[in-house]
Amino acid sequence: MTTLRLPGLVDAHVHLREPGYEHKEDFYTGTVAALAGGVTTVLDMPNTQPPTATPALLREKARLAAAKAVCDVGLFVGATNDRADAYLPAAQHACGLKIYVSDTFGSLRIDSLDLLHRLFRTWAGKADAVGYRMDGREQGLGPIAVHAEELMLPVCLNLSHLYDVPLHVVHVSRRSEIELIRTAKERGYRVTCEVTPHHLFLTTEDAARLGPLGDMRPRLATPDDQAALWENLDVIDLFATDHAPHTLAEKAALETPPPGVPGLETMLPLLITAMVEGRLTEDDIVARCAHNPRRVYGLPAQPDTWVDVVVEDQPVPWSNERMKTRVGWSPFAGMPLHGRVERVTLRGEVVYEDGRVLAAPGSGRVLFGAANPAA
Amino acid sequence: MTTLRLPGLVDAHVHLREPGYEHKEDFYTGTVAALAGGVTTVLDMPNTQPPTATPALLREKARLAAAKAVCDVGLFVGATNDRADAYLPAAQHACGLKIYVSDTFGSLRIDSLDLLHRLFRTWAGKADAVGYRMDGREQGLGPIAVHAEELMLPVCLNLSHLYDVPLHVVHVSRRSEIELIRTAKERGYRVTCEVTPHHLFLTTEDAARLGPLGDMRPRLATPDDQAALWENLDVIDLFATDHAPHTLAEKAALETPPPGVPGLETMLPLLITAMVEGRLTEDDIVARCAHNPRRVYGLPAQPDTWVDVVVEDQPVPWSNERMKTRVGWSPFAGMPLHGRVERVTLRGEVVYEDGRVLAAPGSGRVLFGAANPAA
Repeated sequence: MTTLRLPGLVDAHVHLREPGYEHKEDFYTGTVAALAGGVTTVLDMPNTQPPTATPALLREKARLAAAKAVCDVGLFVGATNDRADAYLPAAQHACGLKIYVSDTFGSLRIDSLDLLHRLFRTWAGKADAVGYRMDGREQGLGPIAVHAEELMLPVCLNLSHLYDVPLHVVHVSRRSEIELIRTAKERGYRVTCEVTPHHLFLTTEDAARLGPLGDMRPRLATPDDQAALWENLDVIDLFATDHAPHTLAEKAALETPPPGVPGLETMLPLLITAMVEGRLTEDDIVARCAHNPRRVYGLPAQPDTWVDVVVEDQPVPWSNERMKTRVGWSPFAGMPLHGRVERVTLRGEVVYEDGRVLAAPGSGRVLFGAANPAA
Repeated sequence: MTTLRLPGLVDAHVHLREPGYEHKEDFYTGTVAALAGGVTTVLDMPNTQPPTATPALLREKARLAAAKAVCDVGLFVGATNDRADAYLPAAQHACGLKIYVSDTFGSLRIDSLDLLHRLFRTWAGKADAVGYRMDGREQGLGPIAVHAEELMLPVCLNLSHLYDVPLHVVHVSRRSEIELIRTAKERGYRVTCEVTPHHLFLTTEDAARLGPLGDMRPRLATPDDQAALWENLDVIDLFATDHAPHTLAEKAALETPPPGVPGLETMLPLLITAMVEGRLTEDDIVARCAHNPRRVYGLPAQPDTWVDVVVEDQPVPWSNERMKTRVGWSPFAGMPLHGRVERVTLRGEVVYEDGRVLAAPGSGRVLFGAANPAA
């Protein structure tokens, strides 16, 4: 048994469900789950109810987060078909703009060239106006993050390149996609990407066993797709969970179960297990869960912040019992994993230890001044 | 009444329907219609039955054309989902590769990133192997021509840019599309585009009146889209007809009439009419119907080849009676037009005069050695 001390992790892709879906998760339960997973910064997606599509809605969500969060929270703004780029005046208070061009949970899918073209053009214009300082930026704009599967990926690569807007491709899942991103990087495109633990550790071969608990967007991919992700590890900038909780009742009862699975608490154990197996190094993990997300989104530093992780000699089957997410389940239940988060220290304070949360609601910070934007 | 002498026109986008649909058109009737429209070179699309998807099928089609054509003919090869890039060994004998990524007549639509990525990559590799001599090329490869509407346009722009393959976008019809192409050209992309007369001269406001006779892909667009084409005339490299004949019986009888309209004989009269109205200059027409298509596709010169056109003082309603296409109809029937092709001279021989074809079947040439490829 050894212990590792890692920097506080960033999960750059979570759905904490507030406002609108608090029965699934909220800013308290979601950030507690984050700490339990060694994550001290989360970036929260805009497909809540209502969607985070205007400056007022961003401010409102930021105040909810500021009151409840126990780790730091950045918030995405989102593009909608009917409100287009209404978020734009508040753009520098968001961690980035999220655009859904592929099928997903919620109602934010953009499917016209006219609107998508406008979104990239206006984001680029705003970015020019406020400057692009991405490294611990105090103002400036984040990247455009896209859910863009299959043919929607080159769409976004093209618009990003034409307007010189940094593009971040979320949850890449297929060989065709990771190989295209490699080519774009080789041609000097300003593109980064992330991969989820579930696409790294599960495939279509697990889907039947898991049923609705293995259903998310993008869906679990083939073993060949999974192999391509591991082969192209150098192209993957971030690991991020796409933590997307739904209740077991919703997953079981509805004729069309909502897609999405929780992931905040299992990411680090899965990655540590891959490390024990020799498939990843500690540096691989720290780069993709801490340094790179900070660089991609221009996140401020968290001084005196680290995670102590116990690496057991023998793997322990993952148990839903210990989970902090409100929905209390994982697609990895029963999987033998190494890596237990023992203690999390945030800005010098121990905020999590041996399964107990020691931080008060509201002790987490909301990033980029979203809660109290300058006039 | 004046007479203009223009160079022999190129129609870089026609469907002469042979083999497989000879009841609609064939290489004789189609090239006779071409001469009647002042066109001395046509580039024929691959969505015949069978599709022009292998070296053997290209050679077979070339022999049909060589036996019947009365003007020069270039042939596209086409990508198919099941035969992928089987055409590749014959690539330099085609005028270019046609890829359908949007909905069309026939079965050639490509809709996976994996395959589309491969098509651009292999075309680029072949082009590297044989050289890109595009100006009256004797070998080398043509561009990839794409039917790519809406979000499929940035897909193709991206793949073309990543692999440095010249992209030609056929029948652009929307404001969003022509504006995106402008931006791509400004960024130095190797992209050219064409617009059809029917999108320049008809809109959704004509669609109800025309019914199935105004149905094609892309569909007639809005007046605002039409205005965008005229506003961006400097971005339009070619005018091309997308001559796509179907019989009146097919258009009338079928529950889902096949999309497409004839266009070879009406293009020049429509453009001359716009010239008389002051919307185009003679140079605009010659650039887009002769010089530019020769440059884009690397077509060989046709010495001593010209078209004599009478520009009547009073417009004459277009009559289907005079038409040479086998299907014998036009969506422009009854429209008052200036511009009647009086005489066509091809390589010093008068091949068309006052409605009569003087050239023998097989006197037209098949370009790029497609009929008798080098071993």
